[in-house]
Amino acid sequence: MGTHFTDRLTVAICAKKSPLLVGLDPRWEQLPGVFHKTANPDSPADRADAYRKFCREVIDVVAPLVPAVKPQAAFFERLGHEGMAALADVIQYAAEKELLVIVDGKRGDIGSTAVAYAEAYLGREQSVWGADALTVNPYLGEDSLTPFVQVAQARDAAIFVLVKTSNPGGKTFQDLTTQDRPLYAHVATLVDALASKSRGHCGYGCVGAVVGATYPEELVDLRDTMPNSWFLVPGFGAQGADASDVAGAFDERGLGAIINSSRGIIFAHAREPYAEKFGETQWQQAVESATLETIQQLCDATPAGRL
Amino acid sequence: MGTHFTDRLTVAICAKKSPLLVGLDPRWEQLPGVFHKTANPDSPADRADAYRKFCREVIDVVAPLVPAVKPQAAFFERLGHEGMAALADVIQYAAEKELLVIVDGKRGDIGSTAVAYAEAYLGREQSVWGADALTVNPYLGEDSLTPFVQVAQARDAAIFVLVKTSNPGGKTFQDLTTQDRPLYAHVATLVDALASKSRGHCGYGCVGAVVGATYPEELVDLRDTMPNSWFLVPGFGAQGADASDVAGAFDERGLGAIINSSRGIIFAHAREPYAEKFGETQWQQAVESATLETIQQLCDATPAGRL
Repeated sequence: MGTHFTDRLTVAICAKKSPLLVGLDPRWEQLPGVFHKTANPDSPADRADAYRKFCREVIDVVAPLVPAVKPQAAFFERLGHEGMAALADVIQYAAEKELLVIVDGKRGDIGSTAVAYAEAYLGREQSVWGADALTVNPYLGEDSLTPFVQVAQARDAAIFVLVKTSNPGGKTFQDLTTQDRPLYAHVATLVDALASKSRGHCGYGCVGAVVGATYPEELVDLRDTMPNSWFLVPGFGAQGADASDVAGAFDERGLGAIINSSRGIIFAHAREPYAEKFGETQWQQAVESATLETIQQLCDATPAGRL
Repeated sequence: MGTHFTDRLTVAICAKKSPLLVGLDPRWEQLPGVFHKTANPDSPADRADAYRKFCREVIDVVAPLVPAVKPQAAFFERLGHEGMAALADVIQYAAEKELLVIVDGKRGDIGSTAVAYAEAYLGREQSVWGADALTVNPYLGEDSLTPFVQVAQARDAAIFVLVKTSNPGGKTFQDLTTQDRPLYAHVATLVDALASKSRGHCGYGCVGAVVGATYPEELVDLRDTMPNSWFLVPGFGAQGADASDVAGAFDERGLGAIINSSRGIIFAHAREPYAEKFGETQWQQAVESATLETIQQLCDATPAGRL
């Protein structure tokens, strides 16, 4: 430890020549059949055990290929405390495999409650969950973000603040215009100000931004608004954006962005061409093949090709 | 079950003649000394066990006096999966004592991820956490709220959406004016529209609103904007608002609002006049006395006196 999160991320991205972030979203119905066979679907403990095994196998496949994984807390929480124990195990396993771990929890609160969330998740060795970063919701305002920033900075960890999300309803509030700018641009200004005070050697701060791939033009504008913030870009693949749509998220070195794909990678066995080629029984090969092809697409269509 | 959340809340409030919601925010440093004695402070399992015992004792004291409790997820999450097991135990114990349970998790996500959070927490018998309601963050927009509403409606549960929070930084984004109204008023309009489609016999829907006590005038305006939404009002007591400040949250029957107090109740032994009168060794009596006096203050200064 002792190395700034964005510098560790930079090293990992350069080593793997890949800006791909693999989302670990274990959905029971979509797991390869082998995980259903030995589990009682009505038992949270059985499902949690299946999630643990599935995620560990995904990690085994992707660890040599990508810099980081993003477990989605909701699917583990869905199974109660036994699911949360599986989440802890998955985070630890990913860290052992030298992957950076960003927990997608979209947490947010104020004061000592925000500190509790930050202390819970941030810091591989200093926190009980042992993650490197956490996604955070900005609706509660500046004093809800600063506790996260302080803990992140002290522990060489990071947060990724929701700025412009990839879902259709993201515009309900985020696009409302105030003082000639949409709300998300105001959030972006605050995020960049916080990031500018905590920059690593690579030039990026410990406060990143979640910016959806489904709005390529806004992505370019937000890259200008937030020169100090690393982007976590969801919405690629399953949500409809293609590799060229995310090009604007990167800086000219091919850094500054990680592009998330979840279902498109971890459940690749269920979609073409991988379903035909590998099928469910060779689901690990489908994951590997989808990972490699997605990385190639990103490197062909974005500045990540310069890595 | 089979009874709408707001109708169950109405019955509980009328039976106890109390609109007080007791927040279960177990902070390690503030626990009565007896809980420190037998625990290793560096052990999450020991701390989680102390939280479990402390919250159970608080519940024993307040169950005859108040309609509901609000465990703060962050403090349990701070202790990892063992803390989450304690949270599950506390929720179950409160339900056994016939308290309604609102988990303060401020969750929010989209699509199937939002469904996972909703299915995780909502529904005493149908969900693994077994809560009656959950606080939800609206930043991701309408399609992030509807999955929660659907699950809540199907399970006679509820959500409380953050509208106008009690913290100073709440104004950072919530008060930005767009189309002649602050952002929080736009959120309020959506919340009330969702609530209007799911009303119980008492007239309130399964979509409530979190509105801070620290803005008494906005509270009155928001009561007008959201006639179908039950209010969860934080910021009373420790955050500076007094009983008269929250009067505007109630309807003329004395219903439509629950007023949260956390530290002011559960750590009453550490503040006057309870510190002098009871001290740490009689902390349960301090909790009881503070609860009764707070209820009296609320009934004297608000329409809750008509209950």
